[in-house]
Order: sequence, then C-alpha cells, then structure tokens
Amino acid sequence: MRLWLRIEYDGTAFAGWQVQPGQRTVQGDLEAALRTLAGQAVTVVGSGRTDAGVHARGQVAHADVPDGLDLVRLRHSLNALTGRDVAVLEVAEADPVFHARYDARRRTYRYHASTDPRALDRATRVVLRPAPDFERMNAAARHLLGTHDFNTFCRMQSETENRVCTLFAAAWEPEARPGDWAFRVEGDRFLHGMVRAIVGTLLLVGQGRLDPDDLPRLIAARDRRVAGPAAPAHGLVLECVAYETG
Amino acid sequence: MRLWLRIEYDGTAFAGWQVQPGQRTVQGDLEAALRTLAGQAVTVVGSGRTDAGVHARGQVAHADVPDGLDLVRLRHSLNALTGRDVAVLEVAEADPVFHARYDARRRTYRYHASTDPRALDRATRVVLRPAPDFERMNAAARHLLGTHDFNTFCRMQSETENRVCTLFAAAWEPEARPGDWAFRVEGDRFLHGMVRAIVGTLLLVGQGRLDPDDLPRLIAARDRRVAGPAAPAHGLVLECVAYETG
Repeated sequence: MRLWLRIEYDGTAFAGWQVQPGQRTVQGDLEAALRTLAGQAVTVVGSGRTDAGVHARGQVAHADVPDGLDLVRLRHSLNALTGRDVAVLEVAEADPVFHARYDARRRTYRYHASTDPRALDRATRVVLRPAPDFERMNAAARHLLGTHDFNTFCRMQSETENRVCTLFAAAWEPEARPGDWAFRVEGDRFLHGMVRAIVGTLLLVGQGRLDPDDLPRLIAARDRRVAGPAAPAHGLVLECVAYETG
Repeated sequence: MRLWLRIEYDGTAFAGWQVQPGQRTVQGDLEAALRTLAGQAVTVVGSGRTDAGVHARGQVAHADVPDGLDLVRLRHSLNALTGRDVAVLEVAEADPVFHARYDARRRTYRYHASTDPRALDRATRVVLRPAPDFERMNAAARHLLGTHDFNTFCRMQSETENRVCTLFAAAWEPEARPGDWAFRVEGDRFLHGMVRAIVGTLLLVGQGRLDPDDLPRLIAARDRRVAGPAAPAHGLVLECVAYETG
C-alpha cells in the first residue's frame, strides 16, 4: 500500500532532505526506519527537497510498503526509530497513484527573523540588526506575486529549463512576540535556493541598498548574479504542502 | 550606577541561574562578561533562581557598574561576550535602590507541552502521549488559585519557613499550533521546584490517577511526598517578572 506521511524536522544536523551518499539526510533516515519496519527496501518520495539546515513543519512524502501494516503502530515505530530531530506527525493510506511531488499544488514556506537578540528559537530564527525596513521589503515583495520566470532566484542557472513559478503570497508579517517577523511565501513550485535568494534580495531592499522598484528589473535579468546573497538556511521552514484533495 | 537587565536564555546547557563553583550558570556567565566590560568584579542579582535546564524569556536582574558606561554599547558587548544561549534583551539605568528580587511583585511562568510528537521546539516542549485531559487539569488547577501554604509543592521541605504564596493565574491554554499547550502560572513568588511539582501533579489528574478535587487535600498536607513527580525541566520558561513601577 502507498503511505502518505507528514513530517516535521529540525534541519540543523541534516545535509538536507535528499539522500546523499555518506551524509545524514531526512529521506535517508526515514528510508532506513521504514526498511526495518517493512522488512524490505522502501523509497520515500518527498514533495520537494530542502537544503542542508532548512527545517520543515509539514513536509509531505509518500512511500510504498507491504499491505496490512497497522498505521498507528507504524507512526509510533517510525518516531521511535528516527532521531529526536525528526517527528512523523501523520501516517495515512494514500491513493495508489498519489505522488507527493507531482500532485503538490501549493507549498508554503516561512522565513523567521527577529530584530532583537534571541537565545531561545535561535535554531530557527536569524537576528537582523540593525532592523531592516519591513514596509520597504513588502513593497518589493509585491513585485514577486503572480507568474514569472524566477531564474534570477535559482541557484542552478539555466537558459532553457522551465523556471516559471507562480507566487500567491509573499510578505513579511509580525509574529506573536514583539520583534519577531516571518516572511511567508506561498507558490505552486519553488526552484533550488529560491526562497533564500528572495529573502536575501529583500534584505538588501530593507537595508536601503536596493529600491523596491528594482525588483522587476532583477526578475527580468534572469541572472542569479543580480540577486542578493542567499539568506542563512536555518531561518527557513517548509510549513505545509497542499494537494488537490485534502 | 545600577543596571536593570532583561535576559533571555536557553537553559539546556546551564546548571541553572545561580552561580555554583565549577558549573556553567547564567549568573556566572553574565558576571564574567560584566567583569570584562567594567574592569572590576560585578555581582548580578536575579529576580529568582531557575533550575538546571529551565529557560527564561524575561528574567530580570540588577547589577552595579561604574558610572558613565554607554548602555547601548554595553548591551551589544554583553551579547557578544556571552554564549549564543544567552541574549540580553534590554539594559537600562535603574533606581539605585531597585532590587530585582525584593521588588518583584509577580512572576509568570509557562510550561510548554504538546500532544503530538515534535522535532522543532523540542528543547522547550515536552510531548505528552497519550494526551492528558486538559479540562480535568484545569478543574484541579483552580484549587491552586489564591493564597495558600505551598509546602506540598516545594523541593526543600520546611515545617517553619514561610511557604505562603499567592497565585493569580494557573491554567493550561491551547497555543497557536494545534496540539501545543502551555500551562501559564502567575504568582507573587514561587518556591524551589514549585511549578514543576504543580505540573507533575496536574498531569496525574490529567491521566485520571488523581481527582481534580484531591487538590485541597494535597495542599493541606504540606508534604512534598503527596504531590506528583517534578515535570521535566526543559518545558519550563520564566516568561516575565513584574515590578511596582514598570
């Protein structure tokens, strides 16, 4: 049967989601745990990769396992077999043709920052000092909404591949604690390193080194070299992935 | 001049707030940093101790330093000299007679739990599985409100010392993320290990092993042996300390 999995992870100690020889990855750890429980090799297919150091509160994946496994016990066993930095939040039976990557319609990321020093939450939040101008950054972010070729914000450059994405939301929002902010971005798909390149570019706007209305020109350039440096990985969390049904 | 300090810390790697020979403590690290900056020994007086592993988002302390130090630079330097698990949020000049412990009127703690497994936030949140009955726990907690002798919930037992405290609030509240809960407790003072003993006792109620209306009897016993085991330290955060003026 095909499993539907929803997974939280602290990316700090992982070389990212995707299996890489000789490295600890979330996919690799889940596959090792499922191999133990299923008694056979199991491939875990995520909704998308996350880079080294990037976290998830709602990564979605599918995996095929032998029929008849008890799903409540399976979730419990997966949590017991994986490290404390991985939590399997949900396990359900999926449609046999469900595909965690191809069927995903929207992905939501949050990039967490604070304008004050932080001791707690420092694994998932970058400190921005001096504080950037969040209104200026949001004026710039509005240019990103809608459908564009995002090659400017993609780590792997390509002249030919399809780099068109649609962003439905892209804005900094204050969080519950004074001084805490999150950049929430929602899109149909994201290119390699795209959120961190966008955040890094917005920070240049927030620091006054770029103008909000420079964004259309940067997007049109389709060249990673005109964007800002990638923001640190540890501020980024994959919040959720939405599918056509449920 | 007398400094007023507001401090956040991740208690994970500390043997608590208070200086202890040969151990890393928050007070000890702050005193070492201030000694470097002031060029003389400085004593830091906190609003109260926190145990090993307990965190703070708003510990308050005072310290006497030579006149004329620039407070903005001082805060910056303190953050640079202390570890990443300590953040000095505010530094101000206090009244010369201000005392962080004696003048404190209310202390607020939060104990963080979740009924779901968690990978992020696991340093500040305990996982409760199976989920306890939060309504039952809140029915029990209502018996704690007001003024009582809390010797039952004090780690250091005493027949004679004043163990009377007044609690203004004591209830589990759902947090923003589904499955997350916090026990918020506010009081004029807290005894050694008191919040963790209260939470451990409430969890027995939530698991059906004690009745909510057992609480008056437990309080009246004035005996730590009738309370539940201390809840784990890492779920506890000292949120804020309130003073007569500001």
